[in-house]
Amino acid sequence: MYKAKIFVNYKPSVLDPKAEVIQNTLHNLGQTNVESVVVGKYFEVNLTGNKSDVDAQVEQLCDQMLANVNMETYRYTLEEVDA
Amino acid sequence: MYKAKIFVNYKPSVLDPKAEVIQNTLHNLGQTNVESVVVGKYFEVNLTGNKSDVDAQVEQLCDQMLANVNMETYRYTLEEVDA
Repeated sequence: MYKAKIFVNYKPSVLDPKAEVIQNTLHNLGQTNVESVVVGKYFEVNLTGNKSDVDAQVEQLCDQMLANVNMETYRYTLEEVDA
Repeated sequence: MYKAKIFVNYKPSVLDPKAEVIQNTLHNLGQTNVESVVVGKYFEVNLTGNKSDVDAQVEQLCDQMLANVNMETYRYTLEEVDA
């Protein structure tokens, strides 16, 4: 079995309102040492199958369901785990 | 400068509707090899300061802002990065 760890973030060119709010709030609280904030989605998906099939399946899953490829980018890792 | 990578997930005891929808949708699409799905939030925060101060600050940030500690758990890593 494989565990896919998937990270989905806004593209750098896209304004991230949540991240802006968090950073401004922290600065207003006096935490001005906060240089930058990035907010994203995180998924862990366990799948059975051989590695190449699972890899292709995860790629498709990201492209078609988990990420809006117009505004977001994704990256993932695959780890073999015990069933 | 330090980069905090923060992961926030629902506690195992809490039903995660998004994860349920994703898993059911995939099963309906015939992808029955998907064993489990976990959905969470992911933050990357860059902070200046010494490691122990930054560590305490991130802990407080998670407890008070990024995670709802009644329903969610969090974990984070700190990496030193170039300013």
